[in-house]
Amino acid sequence: MKQIYESTPKVNKEMGRQVGEYINTLTKPIGSLGRLEEMAINLAEMKNEPFPSVTPPGVLVFAADHGITSEGVSAYPQAVTEQMVRNFLNGGAAINVFSRQIGAILKVIDIGVATDIEHESLINQKVRYGTGNFYLEDAMSRQEAEQAMDAGYNQALQIIEEGAQCLILGEMGIGNTTSSSAILAVLSGKDISQLVGRGTGISDATFLHKTEIIKQALIRRNPNPNDPIDILAKVGGLEIAAMTGAMLGAASKRVPILVDGFICTIAALVANLISPSVNDYIMVTHQSVEPGHNIALSLVGKKPIIDLGLRLGEGTGAAISFPIIQSATLMLKEMATFDSAGISKK
Amino acid sequence: MKQIYESTPKVNKEMGRQVGEYINTLTKPIGSLGRLEEMAINLAEMKNEPFPSVTPPGVLVFAADHGITSEGVSAYPQAVTEQMVRNFLNGGAAINVFSRQIGAILKVIDIGVATDIEHESLINQKVRYGTGNFYLEDAMSRQEAEQAMDAGYNQALQIIEEGAQCLILGEMGIGNTTSSSAILAVLSGKDISQLVGRGTGISDATFLHKTEIIKQALIRRNPNPNDPIDILAKVGGLEIAAMTGAMLGAASKRVPILVDGFICTIAALVANLISPSVNDYIMVTHQSVEPGHNIALSLVGKKPIIDLGLRLGEGTGAAISFPIIQSATLMLKEMATFDSAGISKK
Repeated sequence: MKQIYESTPKVNKEMGRQVGEYINTLTKPIGSLGRLEEMAINLAEMKNEPFPSVTPPGVLVFAADHGITSEGVSAYPQAVTEQMVRNFLNGGAAINVFSRQIGAILKVIDIGVATDIEHESLINQKVRYGTGNFYLEDAMSRQEAEQAMDAGYNQALQIIEEGAQCLILGEMGIGNTTSSSAILAVLSGKDISQLVGRGTGISDATFLHKTEIIKQALIRRNPNPNDPIDILAKVGGLEIAAMTGAMLGAASKRVPILVDGFICTIAALVANLISPSVNDYIMVTHQSVEPGHNIALSLVGKKPIIDLGLRLGEGTGAAISFPIIQSATLMLKEMATFDSAGISKK
Repeated sequence: MKQIYESTPKVNKEMGRQVGEYINTLTKPIGSLGRLEEMAINLAEMKNEPFPSVTPPGVLVFAADHGITSEGVSAYPQAVTEQMVRNFLNGGAAINVFSRQIGAILKVIDIGVATDIEHESLINQKVRYGTGNFYLEDAMSRQEAEQAMDAGYNQALQIIEEGAQCLILGEMGIGNTTSSSAILAVLSGKDISQLVGRGTGISDATFLHKTEIIKQALIRRNPNPNDPIDILAKVGGLEIAAMTGAMLGAASKRVPILVDGFICTIAALVANLISPSVNDYIMVTHQSVEPGHNIALSLVGKKPIIDLGLRLGEGTGAAISFPIIQSATLMLKEMATFDSAGISKK
């Protein structure tokens, strides 16, 4: 499987150059649509098409539990993961609302929830019943990490097969900012105190405790920073591994990846470690308020599209940003040129 | 008419408070949808409804010419105003593309183009054939400024009558950043050199010339900073006056106003001078790259929703931002509560 992951196609920079020239013929002052113009160029490079489309978007929400919650690092009990999955399946969560708004194909995947959930709309790809508590033991085995990645990879190929023209990745897993901060500490080499945030909203005491737990756990687990599977296995999460695999799958098909907030950006960093070309298929959609997000973004080397103080996860920031990306494609496809409209140039 | 303009209804802060409490019962960590939550509260206050809707949006694009273009302050010839109006009517401009994307009712109004345009879709409200060159004479008479405002006011009432649930205002007028910078100098008391920008993309030499022309014109015209009609008449634009009137019309009907970039924000400042309560109905949608925009925004006292380096006008920034505002209303209307979804609280 590793070989498959590494074979990400290169983006077509020449297509981007041509599209950039075409944009300069559209009926507007040159450069006046700012970042929309960049997005249109990037999408053309990714899709290798002069008029790339992003509709319909596909949304994959991966849910899993985290053994580390036993250490009291979260504001909510672990049971909320399952309860929120049921909320997704009943259409009442934020990602349901925004997916309907943008006409997305939405799928919810159990990649490792701690309990069994029976529902006809749930995709069961459970690797195990939540990760191990990585303060005490590895989060999962290498094999389990690869199994979760493979499941994510295949889900991406499947939703693309069903017509998704871009991929939004979301997650649900109480405790997953703890795992994400630990992964980021390994990848960035920075001190964990700079990388820990309030997650879903913890107190000052829990915040200090969360920081200390991750610090000790990193000493105990000691993941190899050059081995992405080792990092995922030792301090990762099943949904993070699945999102990593899904990104590799999307990039293999030249499908743009709309990266949501902190946790999704961490998955992008792991995917980049496996196949650096994946980064060319990534659009960072929003600036999260999690403090580690800025550091993660500096490693990805991209600027978010919106900054609205979001910290919900589920893929919501990406879904909210989607119409702006769609605007960029419609600009390209539907605007008249100076020549066709008979308008004077400068 | 002045009496009508001054009777803007107060927003209902109590409705906003109740909606804020309701948002805290939705299935997400408290505050985790950041500015979307603020927007939902503000819309509820404006519309005096617990579940405000913004669909369909109405877009009014006012077009007019500026005599000041005779002084060589613009990158494009005056003829482009008419040519772009034809582009609007043929559906090929950026605002057409984004209006279609968001399902908007779009109307194009000739409030003072220098030439006659015959087209069945054009709304003819021409006050005069372009403004006077305010370097040499007043841009228009007080009566003409009021006539343009009245036309804007009535167009707003009309599109609201036809179903628009929020109002996007756009403009087309070669030379209108020059007029806007002049108005801002009067309203802010700041030196003109801080307020002048590149408009549609002028050279360094034109930039210095534009600054000097405005500086001299302000000395010659000497508008009264406490008299909005005097400011519009002496250095304003017909489309700026019409947008001012349209904002007063929308606010009178409790309809949210989505303010586009620099020129539209200037119209908002003039509207606020006539009726300060109008400001409570304003949502500033995007941060323009025009240097005066920041100063104008500080006077409005609001933070833009997006910052994507846009400087096109036509209402495009507001149209591109619209889906985010829609997301805020859908969050309120469609998300499940913790109780209804049976989810554990902290």
